Amino acid sequence: MERKQQGKQSVRFACPPVICGAASIVGEKEGDGPFGDQFDFIEMDPLVGGDTWEDAEGRLQEKAAEMAITKAGCGKDAIRYVVAGDLLGQLMASSFGLMSLQKPLFGVYGACSTMGESMGIGAMLVEGGYADYVLAMTSSHFASAEKQFRFPLGYANQRPKAATWTVTGSGAVIIGTPGASHAMARIKGITTGKIVDYGVKDTMNMGACMAPAAADAIAAHFTDFGSRPEEYDRIITGDLGMVGEDILIDILREKGYEIADRYMDCGIEIYGKDQNTQAGGSGCGCSAVMLAGYILKQLEAGEWKRVLFVPTGALLSVVSFNEGNSIPGIAHAVLLESLVED
Amino acid sequence: MERKQQGKQSVRFACPPVICGAASIVGEKEGDGPFGDQFDFIEMDPLVGGDTWEDAEGRLQEKAAEMAITKAGCGKDAIRYVVAGDLLGQLMASSFGLMSLQKPLFGVYGACSTMGESMGIGAMLVEGGYADYVLAMTSSHFASAEKQFRFPLGYANQRPKAATWTVTGSGAVIIGTPGASHAMARIKGITTGKIVDYGVKDTMNMGACMAPAAADAIAAHFTDFGSRPEEYDRIITGDLGMVGEDILIDILREKGYEIADRYMDCGIEIYGKDQNTQAGGSGCGCSAVMLAGYILKQLEAGEWKRVLFVPTGALLSVVSFNEGNSIPGIAHAVLLESLVED
Repeated sequence: MERKQQGKQSVRFACPPVICGAASIVGEKEGDGPFGDQFDFIEMDPLVGGDTWEDAEGRLQEKAAEMAITKAGCGKDAIRYVVAGDLLGQLMASSFGLMSLQKPLFGVYGACSTMGESMGIGAMLVEGGYADYVLAMTSSHFASAEKQFRFPLGYANQRPKAATWTVTGSGAVIIGTPGASHAMARIKGITTGKIVDYGVKDTMNMGACMAPAAADAIAAHFTDFGSRPEEYDRIITGDLGMVGEDILIDILREKGYEIADRYMDCGIEIYGKDQNTQAGGSGCGCSAVMLAGYILKQLEAGEWKRVLFVPTGALLSVVSFNEGNSIPGIAHAVLLESLVED
Repeated sequence: MERKQQGKQSVRFACPPVICGAASIVGEKEGDGPFGDQFDFIEMDPLVGGDTWEDAEGRLQEKAAEMAITKAGCGKDAIRYVVAGDLLGQLMASSFGLMSLQKPLFGVYGACSTMGESMGIGAMLVEGGYADYVLAMTSSHFASAEKQFRFPLGYANQRPKAATWTVTGSGAVIIGTPGASHAMARIKGITTGKIVDYGVKDTMNMGACMAPAAADAIAAHFTDFGSRPEEYDRIITGDLGMVGEDILIDILREKGYEIADRYMDCGIEIYGKDQNTQAGGSGCGCSAVMLAGYILKQLEAGEWKRVLFVPTGALLSVVSFNEGNSIPGIAHAVLLESLVED
């Protein structure tokens, strides 16, 4: 067996798989934001034609999956595995939303880091020869997340400044072998994260829970690849928000890495300042739709050559929180490269 | 890239990874059952020294992980990835129980099929060259599962005959490259399942929800490998229980496969008939501890040469159930072979 391991936590792909299809479906609020014209489809019905919030989120996944497959042009039959997850208990959105695909399914959970996890596993399965095409995806929905993690919408509770707004949306990518048509970018490597717990217990301040995990994964990536921040056009986290951004930049600065001039957070970018979302967007869907709707297009156009995409998750459950536990974080980094030659 | 795909849903490993360490930790009731002397450790404290049921389940995982690593003799540093999950919302037991390992973590969820999912991913990562050793594991706990899915224990509700009893336990295996020492059996292939929904809505009859998914995965395995039931010493499902067993055997008979004479269900076997567990044991931990405690030992001793291990999951959530949804099933098959030559 050929060893493809890079450093302690990373893989450098010798035959990098490509992303050859991507779809982003968002809700009305995300459509009203600064990236509204970048997303593939803006769903104006919060229930997506369904009966419940969970059903609605599943329908977002189903639509995003079908659109990504169509855009890849590979045909549904060519998809070997689906690697998908969401924030809901027992992955309700994925379990019900993706049933109709009738494909071998690996359900995954990494809180809002799930897109990084599904892409990491998907890329290894493709490069390893276990699949020609893998569908990697995730979703979140503002109403299903508020219902599960915080307060039912009808309570109309006030939101503190550090709170984030769960993105309604689903992002899906098709990962294919290097020769696949419609290739948008290549997955050059991955750095899989560990759980990092700084003891933060505030569910209204998820950025502070996740930033140490993001710093850990990004620093591990630099160490494993022997690289420096200057070698990346963008270093993009999932949903740290305003509070988490500062913490991340500070921690990495202490470790000797200056990323502020090339740093971007999907959660900060996805909503406008006038959209009343406090610290920014969050949820599995946040980084997934920004990847499919915006980041991949920049790579495809050659605007960016090298991007470290780092979805970030807070391993929060209502039960663990009510039992007084802290909220540990996890983050998974995916190294994306443009296929456009200089 | 070398294609390693077998049929539509399967992988046949050219360089089969081995299981080179396995640990099973169970609760008192499981220790009192017919396989009590097979498990590595019987934990007499239902809280495992913790404060809550979720904490207790996490501690079971932590102990099983450490024991499996010790038995593999590879040292903790050699473990590249942990692939783990459980039944709790947001994988609470894995998130908190495995934090101290400080290893790159892929959280997975396939309800009670999770052990099949974690072993499938783990085996591909090892054979693909992405890891020399992967820790694949899962857990369940009677009290945390009852609290989450059914009724708090204090209600003392009555249990119908089709109900199963969630196993308190955690099973862990170390998957290593073919040359690994302490090898107990090889993983010759996997068949990854699809979601199958027959529309069953009874949370007290999980066997009926899962049996069609098990039949689907087993039939797909036979088709993909061009094999017949006679070529396997045992075909072993996770936790179909008494009701699910009959359904599975009937469905496969209709498809032209007779498995009754070599069929075993971990859920039926793990408790004695006098233990008042109705249709048998269930939970992620059920098939995991039976694999680590019993099945692998039979393969190691050469008593069985070829086993199809098929953990079975019911994709049930309290929310989806209360919203009137059916309970879809999923099952993942792992083909295990003995290393003992005839």
